[in-house]
Amino acid sequence: MNDLQKKNFIHSIVKYDHENSSIVLDQLAIEEPLEIVLKFTKNNQTIYKTIAITMRTPGNDLELTLGFLFSESIIDSYSDILSVDYRMSLENNEETQQTIVLEVNPDLMVRIQNLERHFYTNSSCGVCGKTSIDLTAQAAKYILKKHQKKISVSFIYSLPDKLNTHQSIFHLTGGIHAAALFDFDSNFVCLTEDIGRHNAVDKLIGKCLLSNDIPCQDHILVLSGRSSFELIQKAIISGIPIVVSVGAPSSLAVQLADSFGMTLIGFLRGNKLNVYTHSYRITQ
Amino acid sequence: MNDLQKKNFIHSIVKYDHENSSIVLDQLAIEEPLEIVLKFTKNNQTIYKTIAITMRTPGNDLELTLGFLFSESIIDSYSDILSVDYRMSLENNEETQQTIVLEVNPDLMVRIQNLERHFYTNSSCGVCGKTSIDLTAQAAKYILKKHQKKISVSFIYSLPDKLNTHQSIFHLTGGIHAAALFDFDSNFVCLTEDIGRHNAVDKLIGKCLLSNDIPCQDHILVLSGRSSFELIQKAIISGIPIVVSVGAPSSLAVQLADSFGMTLIGFLRGNKLNVYTHSYRITQ
Repeated sequence: MNDLQKKNFIHSIVKYDHENSSIVLDQLAIEEPLEIVLKFTKNNQTIYKTIAITMRTPGNDLELTLGFLFSESIIDSYSDILSVDYRMSLENNEETQQTIVLEVNPDLMVRIQNLERHFYTNSSCGVCGKTSIDLTAQAAKYILKKHQKKISVSFIYSLPDKLNTHQSIFHLTGGIHAAALFDFDSNFVCLTEDIGRHNAVDKLIGKCLLSNDIPCQDHILVLSGRSSFELIQKAIISGIPIVVSVGAPSSLAVQLADSFGMTLIGFLRGNKLNVYTHSYRITQ
Repeated sequence: MNDLQKKNFIHSIVKYDHENSSIVLDQLAIEEPLEIVLKFTKNNQTIYKTIAITMRTPGNDLELTLGFLFSESIIDSYSDILSVDYRMSLENNEETQQTIVLEVNPDLMVRIQNLERHFYTNSSCGVCGKTSIDLTAQAAKYILKKHQKKISVSFIYSLPDKLNTHQSIFHLTGGIHAAALFDFDSNFVCLTEDIGRHNAVDKLIGKCLLSNDIPCQDHILVLSGRSSFELIQKAIISGIPIVVSVGAPSSLAVQLADSFGMTLIGFLRGNKLNVYTHSYRITQ
């Protein structure tokens, strides 16, 4: 499966360096879902059970699955695996691996129930990238607004400093993520913090729900870290038209932002940034 | 619940600056589990359903839950919530909030089934920090080895450069995490990459399972990002005695490492680092 690791995702972006902009090709970290299915055969009966759907970078999928099952105490060693099978599907005329089926020693089946009780669930979506985007379309109630007003790059360059001003926990611990909302007139609206990137965004959306401010159609979401599929999905469902992340976006984050007409900015460092999608909302 | 946000976790650490070391107090980002329970009442019947247990930084728990439910399309607005209740528990003689119970409009109950089908599951453990540590003890088959041989700080300072040398995807995209194993004689063993920190570690453990190298009792795990509870849990289950993270550890990561006799190092920047637990394995 190491071939998959080499699969590229190249995207055309607008690169800003101070006031200058240019269109360049950029390579993105690949994010794609993998469904992990366990197969048990006992007394001539075969049971299939999906135990996780995880967003991952393709490559070493067997290792990923083994490590996951071992960490969850479902298997003790590789010898507990009786067979390995992959289910492929066609996407963009390319075969991609989306499901891994591991036949496990049937004596270990009891451990699954234990797992279910203690599972940490994070966020949700469909089984493959395409289905995920379709599911977001079902969940999204608001069409992202196409504003006449544009946002200046100089304002965006100032956002990390503004984030620092409003962050309370980060300065003390250095280990926390922040999510913040600004309006189109450059005013700070609110900020939330959490060790988890998803949690920081959920807290922000929750604040807006409490104050009845959803959809946030005239707002910019600023993220202290990277932007993944799930974070962009949350922003779309809340009607947010511009997302600025200090870190890099994943391939699926860019595809999702592109499909829904969102302006996605990343790699905001000093007076430099990349506009990955719908750059018309940004101006010098 | 904003009081909880201010709760501190102060830990005594060994701070290395080049060859000099000192013992100082350090403040850590708090990581604690929150169980989200939905309550539905219809035809005089009340149903409680745990829909997620998430590791989060305490504070804004209601907002976190609302944002999560909205992102998952379970609620459309705050008015779908009929009541909010918290269940507290005693830990370290302090009341901590561990469960939030939201009574939801019973007409929305059908949406839960939809959610279950599409859930992304990540990693597992118990309901509260203490239970999590107890559960790790049940899952951990290997006692971390107490080596006579010590690891020098100068070797640890060299690890980020060594990581860069072996990383393939990061250089191209800037948006990927790496996990690597080194042995006690400073030799590189293997490296894995993924957009997800947990996945990178699962892939690494999976590699060791394939080559029958578990437990990794004479190895150092190096993480390109921060260290959370779940990553430390995975390392303990694999028998790894030293974890070095470039970023900061969470409060629960430190508590877990401390309980299991693991040496946990973080904030590795230039020729500086912090030893959070069991510093006896490290020498100048």
